[in-house]
Amino acid sequence: MGRTARLVVVSAHAADFVWRAGGAIARCADDGGEVTVVCLSYGERGESAALWRAEGATLESVKAARADGATTAADELGAAIEFLDAGDYPLRATDELLDRLVARFRALAPTLLLTHSASDPYNLDHALTHELVLRARMVAQAEGLPDRTTAPLGATQVMAFEPHQPEQCGFVPDNLLDITPVMERKRAAMKAMDSAQGHLVDYYAELAVRRGVQARRNGAPSSVTHAEAFQQVFPTVGERLW
Amino acid sequence: MGRTARLVVVSAHAADFVWRAGGAIARCADDGGEVTVVCLSYGERGESAALWRAEGATLESVKAARADGATTAADELGAAIEFLDAGDYPLRATDELLDRLVARFRALAPTLLLTHSASDPYNLDHALTHELVLRARMVAQAEGLPDRTTAPLGATQVMAFEPHQPEQCGFVPDNLLDITPVMERKRAAMKAMDSAQGHLVDYYAELAVRRGVQARRNGAPSSVTHAEAFQQVFPTVGERLW
Amino acid sequence: MGRTARLVVVSAHAADFVWRAGGAIARCADDGGEVTVVCLSYGERGESAALWRAEGATLESVKAARADGATTAADELGAAIEFLDAGDYPLRATDELLDRLVARFRALAPTLLLTHSASDPYNLDHALTHELVLRARMVAQAEGLPDRTTAPLGATQVMAFEPHQPEQCGFVPDNLLDITPVMERKRAAMKAMDSAQGHLVDYYAELAVRRGVQARRNGAPSSVTHAEAFQQVFPTVGERLW
Amino acid sequence: MGRTARLVVVSAHAADFVWRAGGAIARCADDGGEVTVVCLSYGERGESAALWRAEGATLESVKAARADGATTAADELGAAIEFLDAGDYPLRATDELLDRLVARFRALAPTLLLTHSASDPYNLDHALTHELVLRARMVAQAEGLPDRTTAPLGATQVMAFEPHQPEQCGFVPDNLLDITPVMERKRAAMKAMDSAQGHLVDYYAELAVRRGVQARRNGAPSSVTHAEAFQQVFPTVGERLW
Amino acid sequence: MGRTARLVVVSAHAADFVWRAGGAIARCADDGGEVTVVCLSYGERGESAALWRAEGATLESVKAARADGATTAADELGAAIEFLDAGDYPLRATDELLDRLVARFRALAPTLLLTHSASDPYNLDHALTHELVLRARMVAQAEGLPDRTTAPLGATQVMAFEPHQPEQCGFVPDNLLDITPVMERKRAAMKAMDSAQGHLVDYYAELAVRRGVQARRNGAPSSVTHAEAFQQVFPTVGERLW
Amino acid sequence: MGRTARLVVVSAHAADFVWRAGGAIARCADDGGEVTVVCLSYGERGESAALWRAEGATLESVKAARADGATTAADELGAAIEFLDAGDYPLRATDELLDRLVARFRALAPTLLLTHSASDPYNLDHALTHELVLRARMVAQAEGLPDRTTAPLGATQVMAFEPHQPEQCGFVPDNLLDITPVMERKRAAMKAMDSAQGHLVDYYAELAVRRGVQARRNGAPSSVTHAEAFQQVFPTVGERLW
Repeated sequence: MGRTARLVVVSAHAADFVWRAGGAIARCADDGGEVTVVCLSYGERGESAALWRAEGATLESVKAARADGATTAADELGAAIEFLDAGDYPLRATDELLDRLVARFRALAPTLLLTHSASDPYNLDHALTHELVLRARMVAQAEGLPDRTTAPLGATQVMAFEPHQPEQCGFVPDNLLDITPVMERKRAAMKAMDSAQGHLVDYYAELAVRRGVQARRNGAPSSVTHAEAFQQVFPTVGERLW
Repeated sequence: MGRTARLVVVSAHAADFVWRAGGAIARCADDGGEVTVVCLSYGERGESAALWRAEGATLESVKAARADGATTAADELGAAIEFLDAGDYPLRATDELLDRLVARFRALAPTLLLTHSASDPYNLDHALTHELVLRARMVAQAEGLPDRTTAPLGATQVMAFEPHQPEQCGFVPDNLLDITPVMERKRAAMKAMDSAQGHLVDYYAELAVRRGVQARRNGAPSSVTHAEAFQQVFPTVGERLW
Repeated sequence: MGRTARLVVVSAHAADFVWRAGGAIARCADDGGEVTVVCLSYGERGESAALWRAEGATLESVKAARADGATTAADELGAAIEFLDAGDYPLRATDELLDRLVARFRALAPTLLLTHSASDPYNLDHALTHELVLRARMVAQAEGLPDRTTAPLGATQVMAFEPHQPEQCGFVPDNLLDITPVMERKRAAMKAMDSAQGHLVDYYAELAVRRGVQARRNGAPSSVTHAEAFQQVFPTVGERLW
Repeated sequence: MGRTARLVVVSAHAADFVWRAGGAIARCADDGGEVTVVCLSYGERGESAALWRAEGATLESVKAARADGATTAADELGAAIEFLDAGDYPLRATDELLDRLVARFRALAPTLLLTHSASDPYNLDHALTHELVLRARMVAQAEGLPDRTTAPLGATQVMAFEPHQPEQCGFVPDNLLDITPVMERKRAAMKAMDSAQGHLVDYYAELAVRRGVQARRNGAPSSVTHAEAFQQVFPTVGERLW
Repeated sequence: MGRTARLVVVSAHAADFVWRAGGAIARCADDGGEVTVVCLSYGERGESAALWRAEGATLESVKAARADGATTAADELGAAIEFLDAGDYPLRATDELLDRLVARFRALAPTLLLTHSASDPYNLDHALTHELVLRARMVAQAEGLPDRTTAPLGATQVMAFEPHQPEQCGFVPDNLLDITPVMERKRAAMKAMDSAQGHLVDYYAELAVRRGVQARRNGAPSSVTHAEAFQQVFPTVGERLW
Repeated sequence: MGRTARLVVVSAHAADFVWRAGGAIARCADDGGEVTVVCLSYGERGESAALWRAEGATLESVKAARADGATTAADELGAAIEFLDAGDYPLRATDELLDRLVARFRALAPTLLLTHSASDPYNLDHALTHELVLRARMVAQAEGLPDRTTAPLGATQVMAFEPHQPEQCGFVPDNLLDITPVMERKRAAMKAMDSAQGHLVDYYAELAVRRGVQARRNGAPSSVTHAEAFQQVFPTVGERLW
């Protein structure tokens, strides 16, 4: 394309971006792209069970630990990271949160957005984040916003990364991304979230193998051993299909 | 990719490939790809109303006229063309037809297959062609075929081109191909089918404009004025999403 | 519309048309329409359990009893009836059966076709009949058939009548037809099938009440007490929505 | 039916009703119906790019220009128009907006509601409007509202008009309305919105031709050259299918 | 299983649980389970038409009458009942309502949740209740809630009970529960709601017969004459399929 | 239930039953059930690549090797096995094959049928097998079959086992079966197919772990470490939901 890719990953909780899109982030960064992770919450209430079991745990200590882990993970992957601290379990779609997301989209001018799938009966924070991203994208495209210092967003593609139980979420992959070259860094990033959700490292490492097998079954060369799955929201436009 | 694209377009009737994929064919040919159109029938019974109204029309004269038009169209687009003459309205999924299609897939070794959508309540020849292509692809992948002189087919992607009434056929475009550079040749190819289905030339020229608008709405540059829509059957595999 | 309605009801087995569309048939006949029921089979193997339990039952005696019942039912409803005797459990989509159906569509020139729903995991004869009707409709529309004595069929609407377990068949009603004025005749017609499937009379009488309640909930006047449900395959075209 | 049709069209932004339902509005008015357009917003932020580029544009000047254009368009089509001024990009589903919509439904007693499709990933204001209409319809049907001066709404049908990218919005037309007799007035109404979104006039004029072709393919007489597409939410109830 | 079943039924309005899950409640109670019905509202505005027609009816008198009926019904079925009095037509998903529901889930520790279906275009209070239940379940599972006196909820299954117009709501039963032994008590419970919605008693009694027929068609013994239908949200886990 | 479970597993190719339902087979056998595997083909053409690479491989030698492996696997799992030798890539739905399947269903009188999913764009033999099972089940239920020595089949449930790429096949698990106690035997059975498709052993062992994680996430106790996923075709009927 020539232009620099600007990837923005919107994550409901501080760790989602690591498990579900860590490979894509690292590859994009390696490719010269600018990657920014926007965490709507720290996952402090719903995804930090191990941290709460620590003696003297408080909401602040849990948030801080999560911020540390997520920042280390983002560093490992080559991404900047921001925390909007909007609260989790439940995340709430306040006007303020939407405004802040719109402002970030205007400022960052993403060429691709990654976020959660449209449906997730297990985790409504995830589905709400998907809806928020679509709504913020729409608002950021408007000509008539009060903020006249930033340009309207273009027709940025949105892709869903893989939920934990894909079939139950109506997730049908249409893009399998080769993450073989960055798998070790994804693993390292996952380990940075270790204290809160350690059992997931092996799980998502194995998932990467399984998506790698699927990639080969769908035509990838045999050198592709690890992959991540994505589902696009909008049609792609291009100059070739082949 | 480096390798040569080998595009095989399987068309239920002699003209479908022109209306629905003419732009993709021409672009692929321009791109250095080898394109082969495989027409399962001439559309002699169902899509040749104007020819039948000619005095003295016979099944043979209609087929010949359709073959002429389709060959001229394929030439214009830069594709080879083959006719399996399996009959239309109805097309029948005989063992012989499947065997012939498998043989062609083995011989042509396509890197991409284009065909009809999976569902079309108006035209069951179209839906049957989709199923035949998937079945022939599967058989052509088998190691144990009697024919040991050709290699098994790889995991070739299949994409559906646009049916005449897309919403009624469950067709949801996920790829919009810029056909601006070849639109004049598509128009010329459509005119070659003129005597049988002339009213469709304007219709599909306007559809290309409409899909062009949609492409721009989904991020194509303003130079894209004409497009064709496609829906992939299998996930793509690749090295980037951006 | 002014023109005479010509309703053709294609029924996989001899009794389906009574349970599922008896009210529509009677109303259409009362409205001055010509109604023809085409039974692909007698339901002799799969839907005649009571008849088989009779002493000395043979395939012929069962078929004859079913033909009698169905003819009485059709008379009661005001419809002509034809039996194609193509066999049931399983019905087979032979070339011959398709040709005969095409010939009937050409000869009868229906303005509306009623048949089974597209899917029915309990009864694949039903789903196959739906597919056969769509295929025969398509072939009957072709200009180039060997039979030049009949005119091509127009763009006849196809509507599915209600399957026995609608949710499991993906049946979503979009038309609720008031059958209050003809309910007694539907009941009489159902009784004519009594010896084979007697328990269904009460069942479908109660279903008519339930669909009547639904009709009132969707805006029918309180005089509507009985209804039948239908789902259209193609969009309707008209001069008003209101 | 005898009774007067009362059509209420709920439009997220000031111009949606023109592009998507202008023909239906004009035909209903010609048919003696009373048509009221309720615009939830002026589309002042999201759909007024051209107006914002004018020197000295303010939120008020943009709103005023949009109100002018929409009022002229409604006049041309024969409809009354109301603006709820609830804001756009994003539209917000406040309690107050719902209450106002309920009050309008009670006062206007529509016999048919037209609005946006249930899903639109490009424009969440549209999808939210669909949900608001269904919710307001439900509340307006309640017996126990504080307002005892108006009667509960009946079981009014709701139909979705066509979104800009129908396949991506899950829009499947089940009603194609002949708008040939009023096409010139629709074009004139579209031109009244010209200064804001002028490029859409040709686009929607061509769409009307395309839907006209589809209407003829689905059985409309050859005099039907222009059409609009709609999808009903609830089953219709009636006395005939034919 | 050995453990005591704790069934919590979340009902948008005071009577929904009776019509749609009365049989399941009574059977669970008979089975030794603890059943609690949580009514989000009394259905005072939208489902109490008969009560409003009484002279001197006020919001309080209607609520009281509904509470009486629902309490009598719950007693009959063997369930405890609670009223959250959150208002109906429309029900509003306030933070407070969510917090209260979370608190109840934490306190009651349900092993199964029953509630409305995910979609209901006729009644958005129902669909909103489904969403609220999924959200409250998720929040109740979080480790880090301020309330440290209750344990996080486990992976409780959620099942939808049958909406009034199942096909229009996308409701596909995957569980048919035999309610034959408790049908008389369900009928008695329904009669307790009589003054408000009396016509529904016969309707739901007949529906139970129809679902009973369906149960037998799907393998239940002939002693099963009445049933209720349910659709699970999550996969079940178990030690046998057979 | 008291009655003996009779499980019949219909496998398109000789090895499918091992990868996809080996755990269910072993558990059912351990539970005292009678399990019969019916292989429609040996998978000799399409799923025996390694065998074809052996020197001197012939169709017969490949079939024999597959029969050996599958028989050893079935023994390991505790099931009887039958081969219908109907050919693969493509499997053909001949009248004879249907008749034989009907005869087996009549003779075996299954209380549960396991087979492939309804859709599989990668492998149309799988989808065809699903359809064949539903059709044979329907025919076997008919009273009027020529064979009067066997009783009609009851309303046997059909469950789909997991396809290789579940999301692409529309497979949504609704039952997760704990196979922890028999995992070693499933692994041994998989190894018996080793020479043909050895790389799949690890793959399906890891899938069992992943489905085990999912089972725990959906409420299984922590002792459940391995599971298999299934999707039922028909609603279950029962005496409890809890």
